[in-house]
Amino acid sequence: MSKNVYFFGEGKADGDAKMKELLGGKGANLAEMTNLNVPVPAGFTISTEVCTLYYKNKGQYPQSLTEEVNTNLANVEKIMKMKFGDPKNPLLLSVRSGARSSMPGMMETILNVGLNETTIQGLIEKTQNPRFAWDSYRRLIQMYSDVVMEKAAGIETKEGEGIRAQLEEELGKVKKSRNAKADCDLSAEDLQELVKVYKAKVKKVLKKDFPDDPMDQLWGAISAVFQSWNGKRAVSYRKIEGIPEEWGTAVNVQAMVFGNMGDTSATGVAFTRNPATGEDVFYGEWLPNAQGEDVVAGIRTPNPINKAGKTEQSQHLTSLEEAMPKVYKQLDQIQKKLEKHYSDMLDIEFTIQEGTLWMLQCRVGKRNGPAAVRMAVEMCKQRMITKNQAVLRVTPSQLDELLHPIVDPAVEKKTKSLAKGLPAGPGGACGQIVFTAAEAVAQAKSGKTVILVREETNPEDVEGMRAAVAILTARGGMTSHAALVARGWGKCCIVGAGALHIDASKKTLSVDGKTLKQGAWLTLNGTKGYVYDGQLPLIEAGEGNVYFEEFLKICDAVRKLNIRTNAETPDDAMKARQFGAEGIGLFRTEHMFYGAGSEQPLSILRKMILSKDESERQKALKELFPFVKKDIKATLDAMDGFPVTIRLLDPPLHEFVPQEKGEIDKLCKELNIKPAEFKQRAEALHESNPMMGHRGVRLGVTYPEIAEMQIRAILEAAGELLQEKKKPFPEIMIPVVSLVEELDHQFELAKRVYEEVLQTTGLKKIPHMLGTMIEIPRACLVAGKIAETAEFFSFGTNDLTQMGFGYSRDDAVAFLHHYVELGLLPADPFQTIDQTGIGELMKIAVERGRNTRPNLKLGICGEHGGDPESVKFCHRIGLNYVSCSPFRVPIARHAAACAAAME
Amino acid sequence: MSKNVYFFGEGKADGDAKMKELLGGKGANLAEMTNLNVPVPAGFTISTEVCTLYYKNKGQYPQSLTEEVNTNLANVEKIMKMKFGDPKNPLLLSVRSGARSSMPGMMETILNVGLNETTIQGLIEKTQNPRFAWDSYRRLIQMYSDVVMEKAAGIETKEGEGIRAQLEEELGKVKKSRNAKADCDLSAEDLQELVKVYKAKVKKVLKKDFPDDPMDQLWGAISAVFQSWNGKRAVSYRKIEGIPEEWGTAVNVQAMVFGNMGDTSATGVAFTRNPATGEDVFYGEWLPNAQGEDVVAGIRTPNPINKAGKTEQSQHLTSLEEAMPKVYKQLDQIQKKLEKHYSDMLDIEFTIQEGTLWMLQCRVGKRNGPAAVRMAVEMCKQRMITKNQAVLRVTPSQLDELLHPIVDPAVEKKTKSLAKGLPAGPGGACGQIVFTAAEAVAQAKSGKTVILVREETNPEDVEGMRAAVAILTARGGMTSHAALVARGWGKCCIVGAGALHIDASKKTLSVDGKTLKQGAWLTLNGTKGYVYDGQLPLIEAGEGNVYFEEFLKICDAVRKLNIRTNAETPDDAMKARQFGAEGIGLFRTEHMFYGAGSEQPLSILRKMILSKDESERQKALKELFPFVKKDIKATLDAMDGFPVTIRLLDPPLHEFVPQEKGEIDKLCKELNIKPAEFKQRAEALHESNPMMGHRGVRLGVTYPEIAEMQIRAILEAAGELLQEKKKPFPEIMIPVVSLVEELDHQFELAKRVYEEVLQTTGLKKIPHMLGTMIEIPRACLVAGKIAETAEFFSFGTNDLTQMGFGYSRDDAVAFLHHYVELGLLPADPFQTIDQTGIGELMKIAVERGRNTRPNLKLGICGEHGGDPESVKFCHRIGLNYVSCSPFRVPIARHAAACAAAME
Repeated sequence: MSKNVYFFGEGKADGDAKMKELLGGKGANLAEMTNLNVPVPAGFTISTEVCTLYYKNKGQYPQSLTEEVNTNLANVEKIMKMKFGDPKNPLLLSVRSGARSSMPGMMETILNVGLNETTIQGLIEKTQNPRFAWDSYRRLIQMYSDVVMEKAAGIETKEGEGIRAQLEEELGKVKKSRNAKADCDLSAEDLQELVKVYKAKVKKVLKKDFPDDPMDQLWGAISAVFQSWNGKRAVSYRKIEGIPEEWGTAVNVQAMVFGNMGDTSATGVAFTRNPATGEDVFYGEWLPNAQGEDVVAGIRTPNPINKAGKTEQSQHLTSLEEAMPKVYKQLDQIQKKLEKHYSDMLDIEFTIQEGTLWMLQCRVGKRNGPAAVRMAVEMCKQRMITKNQAVLRVTPSQLDELLHPIVDPAVEKKTKSLAKGLPAGPGGACGQIVFTAAEAVAQAKSGKTVILVREETNPEDVEGMRAAVAILTARGGMTSHAALVARGWGKCCIVGAGALHIDASKKTLSVDGKTLKQGAWLTLNGTKGYVYDGQLPLIEAGEGNVYFEEFLKICDAVRKLNIRTNAETPDDAMKARQFGAEGIGLFRTEHMFYGAGSEQPLSILRKMILSKDESERQKALKELFPFVKKDIKATLDAMDGFPVTIRLLDPPLHEFVPQEKGEIDKLCKELNIKPAEFKQRAEALHESNPMMGHRGVRLGVTYPEIAEMQIRAILEAAGELLQEKKKPFPEIMIPVVSLVEELDHQFELAKRVYEEVLQTTGLKKIPHMLGTMIEIPRACLVAGKIAETAEFFSFGTNDLTQMGFGYSRDDAVAFLHHYVELGLLPADPFQTIDQTGIGELMKIAVERGRNTRPNLKLGICGEHGGDPESVKFCHRIGLNYVSCSPFRVPIARHAAACAAAME
Repeated sequence: MSKNVYFFGEGKADGDAKMKELLGGKGANLAEMTNLNVPVPAGFTISTEVCTLYYKNKGQYPQSLTEEVNTNLANVEKIMKMKFGDPKNPLLLSVRSGARSSMPGMMETILNVGLNETTIQGLIEKTQNPRFAWDSYRRLIQMYSDVVMEKAAGIETKEGEGIRAQLEEELGKVKKSRNAKADCDLSAEDLQELVKVYKAKVKKVLKKDFPDDPMDQLWGAISAVFQSWNGKRAVSYRKIEGIPEEWGTAVNVQAMVFGNMGDTSATGVAFTRNPATGEDVFYGEWLPNAQGEDVVAGIRTPNPINKAGKTEQSQHLTSLEEAMPKVYKQLDQIQKKLEKHYSDMLDIEFTIQEGTLWMLQCRVGKRNGPAAVRMAVEMCKQRMITKNQAVLRVTPSQLDELLHPIVDPAVEKKTKSLAKGLPAGPGGACGQIVFTAAEAVAQAKSGKTVILVREETNPEDVEGMRAAVAILTARGGMTSHAALVARGWGKCCIVGAGALHIDASKKTLSVDGKTLKQGAWLTLNGTKGYVYDGQLPLIEAGEGNVYFEEFLKICDAVRKLNIRTNAETPDDAMKARQFGAEGIGLFRTEHMFYGAGSEQPLSILRKMILSKDESERQKALKELFPFVKKDIKATLDAMDGFPVTIRLLDPPLHEFVPQEKGEIDKLCKELNIKPAEFKQRAEALHESNPMMGHRGVRLGVTYPEIAEMQIRAILEAAGELLQEKKKPFPEIMIPVVSLVEELDHQFELAKRVYEEVLQTTGLKKIPHMLGTMIEIPRACLVAGKIAETAEFFSFGTNDLTQMGFGYSRDDAVAFLHHYVELGLLPADPFQTIDQTGIGELMKIAVERGRNTRPNLKLGICGEHGGDPESVKFCHRIGLNYVSCSPFRVPIARHAAACAAAME
């Protein structure tokens, strides 16, 4: 017969903190505290296994449970020196849920179990406080009739029509008739009367007497807690948080202690350090003559627990330190003891009953980002935790909080969102709506803060996107144009908010029956994807935070992966170096044709693309060459001493074909062709599935002169820097390779150009490497062959995910959210690497590549390089580096450290 | 010291037929014949290794070569009883190339080596035939000066300006001055004079005397043959045929025998069986008093070799059988002996010198398709070869010849093609140009034979395509719409003929400066992709061929793979069964929305697609249901007793959205919506990369009601057939699966529908299987997991190739032909499975799938199922069946047999 019930009390417990799976978090910590000789009211925990059995056996308990509960109850009675149901000296019990992982407010609690017409007399006599006793009874009826007699019995009611609401109504009536403002204005007699009214109402509504037998009350409460594990709220919370149904909840039955027995009684909640700042001071709140729920409910304003916690606003309130210095001192010793024991900041709950301190709960405390970082740094310095532990104490989203202004969580919590989209660029932003890029630029110039709202964005919107404080689109996925650009800039962005109807011509945005015009205010939470109507306050979490830098240094000491950045301008390169980047993992040569200053090179590129033959093309390439070289040289210079991976032209050429009449006319003039001829040439470039079309190395093979021009520009730029005594290190990367033969073709060309550049520059050597993107499934399979030629691989996991799944990233939005909702996919694979499938392809490539070339340099330059889970995966499969947008570098440094720390 | 020279003569040879790599084909067979005691003029072979060394050492021979040649030459002299360079009794030699694999006419030959001013006197004396002697000398100078003194010396000349042309000119002059029509009209004196003129001309043009020393002549000839291995013609031939450069050629030096020494001399070429029909009769041609080149050159019409070979046209000519019955009898015995020895039809060359028969060559003879099939069948019956050998005696393209009318090869050879495209549908066709599907239908109705010429085709062209005798498009690849449809019907088709400029509005087709109008005649060779102007004759190769059926029966006995077909109509199903199909491997449910009779279901489908919500969609689905069920039932019935794999809706929905105004208006009316609303709904379906978009199982998951309707139709159809005492066996196949979770989702639905259908039909069981297409790279990697659910896999290698390579099959034409030309890819991977990459994915899927479910049924239903190399690959990796279009079934049966025979 296995053990179902675990006792705790008077310094000895059956369980301990490690037994969370069996006893739930609350039960395990109550046991642990008991073992540490901290004063905890005696009690016992019915294990989570009983919950599982209860559901498996359709509400039946294990046979032995009654006897075990009786035995343990007798122990509690012995220690607390009271008896459950005793008319003279009644023991009252609390019955609380307690799952393995905290599910705040999602399950039920019943207090004051054991009160009835007989035992209340004993309580009155004992406490000499009839008002307290009748109030406790009234609360029991209110809670119990709701939770046990109505909800657990499966009686469904409409919002506001359940028994609880009806009893509240009776309470209101009595208060009105007594002219009482608050509950506490009611007298003992009023409450006694109310108990009668309550019982009658319960009988009338639920067709049952309120149970008088304390043992009936106890079992009813236990069952109700088990039932609440499958209550609606709990089920949907578990779904969101990914908590498995089979975990179950434990039930904690514990002797009641009362903080509302007069002025020497009190209750409070505290943290061993400040959870909002991380500062190492004991921090908390308390209320004299109150029960725990009063602190939580926020009806009365609680007092600061100590002088250190007083603020300007709370200066006048009495702290526990002042009101009960002896008890405070005991509490302070206990919190220190507990924090040291747990090596972490704790959240504790206590009650003082007539001068005696009781600890009711302790658990690892929740904290915000800045606090998490500071605590990790300071605890590490205080040698409470190791560097590895420090690294793991901060979650990626906590670290992220320090990188962007965020919507004030307190306000956001209370605000209904207008729409939900994909969280494409983190942080919060607040601005006025504009519908075109041009408008965004104009308004921003006139000093306005604008949010660019578009159906979806394209390269021509880039200037407007830069001018806007945030971007919101109705279409597109996590790797759509808007998302990629915004993330690259660390700009707040929400994409694919499908509920929005955008009419750019009328300059309106409609959603859910509401219509907003240009100039209306919006607030975006880009970290979660929520759109709010109007202006919500933003807060800056990270600015000038010294702990942030210290924390990242700890990460650097722990991590093994190198961190690079994806950048194409000297500015971005400098920014990334400040964020700690150790090189560029992806320099997209085509970037120079987008955005500011791109007019001239773009117009030459367009000529090149629409050339009718090689000689026209060669002429355009010659014109383009100085721009390309200058552009590359500037970034190589900014990254001096670090490697820079430069990817040759990647996108399908038709992406650059102009769409606007003015642009087309200009181009026709330059090419000296008629619009009909232009149309024919442009149509020849059209593709049905451009993502799998004529792009990347395929262009390099069919138009070797394009690849040659780029390679020459790279090597000449590096050569010039060498002559200026700099240390450039370009890594030339060929994209979209699926055949080693393609790579050989390009490398042969590169080697010839290299010899020619050595000749013309007179240099003996220009340090560089030749390698490839691995972004096509076939390339992974033939990686062993490819590594014979390639000196490095860089995984392009965006495309690898596209081809590996057969998901067009532009189109997959139509079903991907649906897939995630249905649980077919655990996450959007464009956000977090699909380790089972795409990751398997990567593993094959790593294995086969390294088999051929043991010192093969391996990296990743897709969007996943800035996703913490993906970074950890890259560490595990043995990559040398990850590369991400400059703003994600700190996140990647941390994730890499976490991966190393978890080994 | 390794042996460089191999002797043969008088019944003993150093080599044999197995030594082709070392001695080349000719040399090895000369040795083999010698060993068989067949009369062969003595000689020796300089091995291919010498050729390799010759190139490696920049024209230097191994040291020992001179001595080896001298020793062997002495042996030849001894056997032939003549001496090389002897003034009285001179031995003359032929020097011929001989590579491992035959390269007809690509390398050089020099005859009569050893003739000079001295030895010619001996020859005249010995033969008493001065005309023959001077003619031989004249031929030597002509050949030698061209091949050795000009070409091998690296002197480049323009076409028609080389030494050979200049000597021909002199020959012409002499003939003119003597009033001679043919060479043979010249007298001995004329020829003697000509030799003088030739020598003077050689000296003048090449600035060198014609060599007089026989040994100089011999070594010059040997070097010239080695040189010709790297001549332009040979190099480009090797490239086309894929013959490696390092193989090299051997050189055969052999005593000359002369068929032109008078009426008891002759020369001839023969086949041991008829190479055009396969009939088992000795077949050949001969010329009295002639040299071998005279037969080949076609200047004189040769006589049939025997009476059996006489035709109406050649009735009057004397056969060798009649002219020299004794020699003929000897020749006939030799050919019988050789065929028996080689167990194959041989191509032999012989010369009769003054009544003595000499064999100069024997090799396996070339044959056309019908002959290959007949020979294989008959030799197998005659127990000359095993069934396995019989199967391997026929190439896929030979078998293909029997399946389609073809352009008469004799005529085609002489005709210049107008354009070249991809060979998308095999066979030949001849018809008048039409530019629209409607025109094709109209003209065909009026009795015309038309070829539909389009930029590219789409589903709306299907009726016109069916009406046309062939299809020609300027765009598209091997798996474009036109190619897929044509191949499915076994119809002649050429796609992607990029040189064509089609102006459908003007009804003209321009190519290379030529413009053809509607009604002009074209001839297409769909097997090779050539387009010809005008009407070329077609020939039927296979009609009523009894050997064809017998051959396929042999194939069936050998093969292990099952062969199924891709078919969607009862007609196609019946046709495929006649061709030997053992089930349907791919029934595309969407086919019913294309082509004849599709108007009503298509219009309902369109309503369904453009429904605004589930209830509208459900209504349309209900309307569609009877059509779908009827359609499926008819084919299940036609394939009674065989499995039918039915694929649920696969293409992206927007493919069915109407484009024409009339259709749109009709649909708007039916849906009761305005055109603007239609536009909005249609745009919502638009995708940037539809191939990787919202299709296949993704539709099934997001609109489960569509999948449900189809599954119900399948099961109800099967149920009804069961009640009619038929044996339907549907296999329900889910396409585009990348996650096992998708499959689970669909199978759960299928299982529910199954239970419901059992209920409504009252049946206890409806035999069926549930499985999936494997066409997404990720699916291959997680095949182990997928096989937990799927009962069968069918590889969709079209899509697997698309995603695995990242090649959009519609767009890849732009670079794929370039890739194949550059040798980056050995073949179009949409035609023949890329075994290295895509094949590796398949192997992984097979391995992991069978690991989970050992009896997993595995097949392939992509276009590759009808490609012989791909079928062999499928056999090797252990699939159970391949499925291809009905007309490819015989090809697949044969390919499967070849794969088994090669094991």
